[in-house]
Amino acid sequence: MEEMKVKTSRQLEVKDLTEKVKGKIDHIEEGLLTLFVPHTTAAVTIQEGDEELWEDMLETYKRLVPLKRDYKHNAKYSGMSGEQNAHAHILSSLIKPSVHIPIEKGKMALGTWQKILFIELDGGRNRKVLLQTLRR
Amino acid sequence: MEEMKVKTSRQLEVKDLTEKVKGKIDHIEEGLLTLFVPHTTAAVTIQEGDEELWEDMLETYKRLVPLKRDYKHNAKYSGMSGEQNAHAHILSSLIKPSVHIPIEKGKMALGTWQKILFIELDGGRNRKVLLQTLRR
Amino acid sequence: MEEMKVKTSRQLEVKDLTEKVKGKIDHIEEGLLTLFVPHTTAAVTIQEGDEELWEDMLETYKRLVPLKRDYKHNAKYSGMSGEQNAHAHILSSLIKPSVHIPIEKGKMALGTWQKILFIELDGGRNRKVLLQTLRR
Repeated sequence: MEEMKVKTSRQLEVKDLTEKVKGKIDHIEEGLLTLFVPHTTAAVTIQEGDEELWEDMLETYKRLVPLKRDYKHNAKYSGMSGEQNAHAHILSSLIKPSVHIPIEKGKMALGTWQKILFIELDGGRNRKVLLQTLRR
Repeated sequence: MEEMKVKTSRQLEVKDLTEKVKGKIDHIEEGLLTLFVPHTTAAVTIQEGDEELWEDMLETYKRLVPLKRDYKHNAKYSGMSGEQNAHAHILSSLIKPSVHIPIEKGKMALGTWQKILFIELDGGRNRKVLLQTLRR
Repeated sequence: MEEMKVKTSRQLEVKDLTEKVKGKIDHIEEGLLTLFVPHTTAAVTIQEGDEELWEDMLETYKRLVPLKRDYKHNAKYSGMSGEQNAHAHILSSLIKPSVHIPIEKGKMALGTWQKILFIELDGGRNRKVLLQTLRR
């Protein structure tokens, strides 16, 4: 298993991991790639590499699960500024922390427009993403 | 890896892939099935085979992420009628493009009511779904 | 493949499965763990083990997909009290019924705060969760 580092600078942010991941799977002919985010306030998904779209995604996530609301988690840690992040936990529970992509002929079977996107929901932070391959 | 074709005719539409998939895994005794949608405006999930429920699902998806809104992606491509689809990208980023199902004794370990559902979010289109099996 | 039993008592409820799962994977050095919920009105995700946060999660799920609404699925089964559960099906279609976690050195590669959470959406019920491991 390999560990990739991801550095984010904004509270909500999308980072394209595709090129970084490509460099790490060329020794596998056929198999399944797992990317796993070992954090509870971030997630990973697959979507287009369009920055305007990323803004639309983050706007929608915030509209559905607002940053400020009467969250019990935030009230419990009311003295701790770093823990006012229930929105990030809730969004991570919906988007989830992993993607799993078939590998064929040494390449991820991503469609033309698909990119692997790290979703920061409570940044900026130094994050990790775990990468595992299973051979077929 | 196999490729299945899926043809959709409506803008938002649910298609049950379960029977099609069953025919393709009978040579595996134990393992993990991956279905991967190589598109950014569609998704795949697991749910009941109830057409009224499918309408409820699609209504909810549209209520949460409306077709028309001030999306930056749509504004960027304002001259292109085929690119007014930010809702589809955003929903695909939430529902995600794959499902992974254990296989035991040559069969998918689906519960009684579970079906594999392709979720078209920007149709009608000719779509593909990739199917991969890993033996245990 | 193993089967775990989960008993829920409330309509919406979060149950932490992490310790139960730990006891079942110690014979695997490296691989991929799949937890699969064979139900259409429940789901499984990964999040923090914080009960206040769980309440925030369930409140958000209900706010986004209300228990009562003009669902066609509920109208179709209007005489059956046990089938007034479109909200549960819709939420399960979004959160989805499986998680897949890398195993390394005999342990799940969960982050410090990550727990495996069963999400009951239409309880209380006796539920099952299937557990499968693939060796690397």
